[in-house]
Amino acid sequence: MAAGVVGRRGFAEGGAMSGAPDADEPVHNAVPIPDLAPVDAALKSGDPAALKAAVKQFRPADLGRDLSRRPIEEDRAILDAIDDRRGAAMLRAAHPVVAAQLLGQVDAPRTCRLLAFLPTDHEVAILGAMSPDQRARIDSAYAPDEKATIDRLLAYPESAIGRIMTPKIWRCDRSSGESPLRAAARTAGDALDILRMNADDIEVAVNCYVCDGPKLVGVVPLRVLATSDRDTPLDQVMTPDPIAVREDTARSDAADIINTHDFLSLPVVDARGDLIGAVRVDDLLGAALDAAGTGILNQGAVSGKLAGRAPYFLTSLARTVRSRLTWLILLFVAETATGTVLRYFEDELAKVVALSFFVPLLIGTGGNAGSQTVSTVIRALALGDVRTRDVLRVVRREVTAGILLGLLLGVIAFFRALLWGVHSDLAMCVAVTILVVCTWANAVGATIPLAAQRLGIDPTVVSAPLITTLVDASGLFIYFSVAHLMVAGLH
Amino acid sequence: MAAGVVGRRGFAEGGAMSGAPDADEPVHNAVPIPDLAPVDAALKSGDPAALKAAVKQFRPADLGRDLSRRPIEEDRAILDAIDDRRGAAMLRAAHPVVAAQLLGQVDAPRTCRLLAFLPTDHEVAILGAMSPDQRARIDSAYAPDEKATIDRLLAYPESAIGRIMTPKIWRCDRSSGESPLRAAARTAGDALDILRMNADDIEVAVNCYVCDGPKLVGVVPLRVLATSDRDTPLDQVMTPDPIAVREDTARSDAADIINTHDFLSLPVVDARGDLIGAVRVDDLLGAALDAAGTGILNQGAVSGKLAGRAPYFLTSLARTVRSRLTWLILLFVAETATGTVLRYFEDELAKVVALSFFVPLLIGTGGNAGSQTVSTVIRALALGDVRTRDVLRVVRREVTAGILLGLLLGVIAFFRALLWGVHSDLAMCVAVTILVVCTWANAVGATIPLAAQRLGIDPTVVSAPLITTLVDASGLFIYFSVAHLMVAGLH
Repeated sequence: MAAGVVGRRGFAEGGAMSGAPDADEPVHNAVPIPDLAPVDAALKSGDPAALKAAVKQFRPADLGRDLSRRPIEEDRAILDAIDDRRGAAMLRAAHPVVAAQLLGQVDAPRTCRLLAFLPTDHEVAILGAMSPDQRARIDSAYAPDEKATIDRLLAYPESAIGRIMTPKIWRCDRSSGESPLRAAARTAGDALDILRMNADDIEVAVNCYVCDGPKLVGVVPLRVLATSDRDTPLDQVMTPDPIAVREDTARSDAADIINTHDFLSLPVVDARGDLIGAVRVDDLLGAALDAAGTGILNQGAVSGKLAGRAPYFLTSLARTVRSRLTWLILLFVAETATGTVLRYFEDELAKVVALSFFVPLLIGTGGNAGSQTVSTVIRALALGDVRTRDVLRVVRREVTAGILLGLLLGVIAFFRALLWGVHSDLAMCVAVTILVVCTWANAVGATIPLAAQRLGIDPTVVSAPLITTLVDASGLFIYFSVAHLMVAGLH
Repeated sequence: MAAGVVGRRGFAEGGAMSGAPDADEPVHNAVPIPDLAPVDAALKSGDPAALKAAVKQFRPADLGRDLSRRPIEEDRAILDAIDDRRGAAMLRAAHPVVAAQLLGQVDAPRTCRLLAFLPTDHEVAILGAMSPDQRARIDSAYAPDEKATIDRLLAYPESAIGRIMTPKIWRCDRSSGESPLRAAARTAGDALDILRMNADDIEVAVNCYVCDGPKLVGVVPLRVLATSDRDTPLDQVMTPDPIAVREDTARSDAADIINTHDFLSLPVVDARGDLIGAVRVDDLLGAALDAAGTGILNQGAVSGKLAGRAPYFLTSLARTVRSRLTWLILLFVAETATGTVLRYFEDELAKVVALSFFVPLLIGTGGNAGSQTVSTVIRALALGDVRTRDVLRVVRREVTAGILLGLLLGVIAFFRALLWGVHSDLAMCVAVTILVVCTWANAVGATIPLAAQRLGIDPTVVSAPLITTLVDASGLFIYFSVAHLMVAGLH
C-alpha cells in the first residue's frame, strides 16, 4: 500500500487539514501540494536516517514539485535520501532546470542511473537544461545510438514538438518488414504481443501505429486492440492515413490539433514523412501550462527567453534584472516621446496649469482601453476565433466598442472634472479627449496583435508593452489639440 | 481512405501550400487550420448538393473549429449538409457556446440525435451554454436517469472538475457486487470483458478503476491489463489507494496533479469518497487552454466572466462593452487620485512648468516595473514555484531587483533630462524619483498577487489592472516630494 497512502499521510502529519482525519475513513481527496513539514523538520535536524524516513512518506512527484523552493543543498540532501527509482520519479516532476542543477551536485554514475529511469522526453528536457560541461561528464555513459537519438532531439528548437516527443512508440509493421528491428504484424494479437514483448521500450502505448516500412499508414487505439479478437486484421480496425505532425511543428499547434480532435497521442513524422515518434497529450498539457506562463511574462514586458525557464527562486538576480532591463529601457525611451509632446505644448501648460491635472488620467484610460482590446484579440487569436485576415472586421468591431465606451466614460469624466472646479470648457475638452482616445486606443490595440501575428512575431511579446507607450504620446497630442480648439485662452 | 486525406486535400485545393503537392507522395503533415475555401465557395453558390460535396472533403473537427468565424446562417447550412455522426463530431470541436447557438436553429429531434453522439463532458458543456428555453425544448427527450445525471453535472460551478468529468468510466467491482449494475471482477480477463461488453457506455478507458462496492480501491492502466495474462488477479497489478480528486476540485488543481504525476485520467470521488467518474487529460488540456485565455483577459482588465466564454465574433457588442466598462470605470475613478495629487502640487507646477514634462514618463516607468513584477509573481504562483507564505522572500527579492533596475534607469533618465535642457537639479530629481518609484512599484507588485492568492482571489483578475493605477498616484506623490527637496525654487 506504500505508493498510494502518501497524499493522505502527508496531510495528517502535516496537520494542514481542518479537523482531524478519521483513521477509519480513507480520504481519497488528493491535494495539489501536500504539506512537507516532516521533510523540513528532518532537514533541520540534520539526521540522515530521519530524512530518509520523512522522504519515504511522500510521493516522489510531490517532493519533486517542491524542489524549486529549496536551497540546492537541501535538494541534494533529499536526493541522497532517496533510492534511484523514486529519485528519478522526483526529478521527473521537478522543473528540468532544477533537475539539471541538482544533478550537477551528483556524481556521473548516479546521474546516469537516475536518467535511465526517465522517459525520453523528460530526459531530453533535463539534458537540454544542463551546461555543456555537465553534459560532457555524462555523455560517455551513453551508448552511441542512444547518444545519437538524444542529440537529434536536443537539436530541435525548444518550442518544437520534436523536443517533447519520444521515439519509443508502439509500432507495427504491416508489410513483411525488411528491417530486423521492426516485427511484421498483421493482427490485433500480433500488435499486443509486440507491446508485451517490448514493454520497456514503448513509452507511448495509447495508440498503436501501423506502418508500411517507415511510412505511417494507420492508427489503432490500444482500447480497440485490447477488446478485439486476436485474429482481427489491423487493416480492419485501424483509422487509415491518420493526422500526424512534422517534428518541427510548434507545440502550440500540436496542442491545438490534439485538443480539436480529442487525441491521446499524436504521431510525429520527419520531413520525408517517415514515422519517427509520438507525443502524448499529458506532455502537451505540461507544455501548454508552460506556454501560458511565458505568455503572462510577455504581457508584463519580461523577456521570457531569459527568465522564463528557471523557477522563480532559482533565477539569479542578475538574470532577473537582465530579463527586465531591455524592455524597461526600450519602453522608457519610447515613453520620452510624451515629454517631447508636453514640451511642445509648454506655453499651453503654463497658461492653464489645470490642463496638467488630467494628463495621467487621460493616458491611463487610453492605456487601459488599449490593453483590454489587445487582451481580447490575443485570446481570440490563441483560440483560433480570429485569423489575421479578419483584421478589418476586428478593427471595425473594436472601434465601435471604443466609441461606446468613450461616450460613457466621457460623460463621467465631464462631471468629475466639474466637481474639481475646473471651467466647463476644460471639462468638455477632457470628455471629448476621452472619447477620441478610447476609440484610437481600441483601433491601435486591435491592429498590433494581428500585425504581429502576420509578421510571425508572438503577439503576446510585443502587444501589451507597446500599446500603453504608443497610446500615451499620441493621447497627449490628441488632448492638447482638442484643448487648443475648445479651451478659452488657448486659441 | 476518406477520414484521413482531408488535411492534405484541403490544402491542395485551397492553394495555400507553397509549391504544388505531389499527388504520389502523401503529405502526412496535418495543419492546424486547413483552408476551407471549397466550403466558402459552395456556401456562396447556394447549391445544397455542392455544399454537401464540399463539406464531405473535410474532417468534421476542422469544420467545427471554423464555425465561430461564420454567421449563424452559414453554420446552419453546413449542419444541414452533414449527417448526424459527422455533425456531432463537428459540434464537439466547436466552442460549446457556438454549438448551443447552432442547435438553437435545429429542431428538437435532430438536436437530441446529435447530442446522443457526444461524450458526456461535451454534451454537458453544450447544454450548459443553452438558454433555459432551449433546454426545456429537449429535456423531454431524455430518460429520467439520464436527465438526473446531466442535471447533477450541470449543477457544478464551471471551474469545477465535476463539470468536465464523465460518469461513464471503466469500473470493476472486486467485491461480489450487490448492485446488479456493476459486474464483480477479479482478474484482468474479467476487466477486459467488462470493457468489451460495455464499449458504448465507457468513455474513459485508459485506466480501469477497481472498487469495493462504491469505494475506489485501486487503478490499473489499460496497457497493463492488455498485456497481462487473463488470469492475473487485479489485486496483483493494480496501484492501491490511488490519487483521486473530489468533484468540486478546481480544474487548475486537477491539471496540476495530472501534470505532476503524468496521469492519462484522474478518478473523481464525491464527498463520501464514492467513485463517481473520471476526467481525461485531453479534456484538462482544453480547460487549461481556456484558462490561459481567461488569464490573458484578466490581465487586460476585461471581465472574463461575461465575455470570456463566447468566441470573439459571436459576442454581442453590448456584452463586449459591459465586460470592459466595469473595470474601465473603476480604474478611471482610481486614476482620478492622480489629479488630486497634481492639484495638491498646483503651485509647484505653476512655478516650474518643466516638472510636468516628466509626469507620464515617471508613472509609465513605475507602471512598467510593477507589471513586470506582477507577471513574474503570477507565473511563479501558477507554476507552484512560489507559495503565499514565501511573501517576505519574494518582496525582498523584488525590492532588490527594483533598486538595481532603478539605479540603471535613473542614470539614463538623468542624462536624457539634461539633453532636454532642464536644470541639473530637476534632472537629478527625475533620476532619484525613478529609483524610488521602481523600488516601490516592485514592492507593491510583489505583494498584490500574493495577497490576492491568500485572500482566495484569482491574482490575474486584480493584479495587472490595479498595479498601474496604484503606482500612478503614489508615484506622483513621490515625484513632487522629491522635487520639493531637490529642485531650486520649490523649497
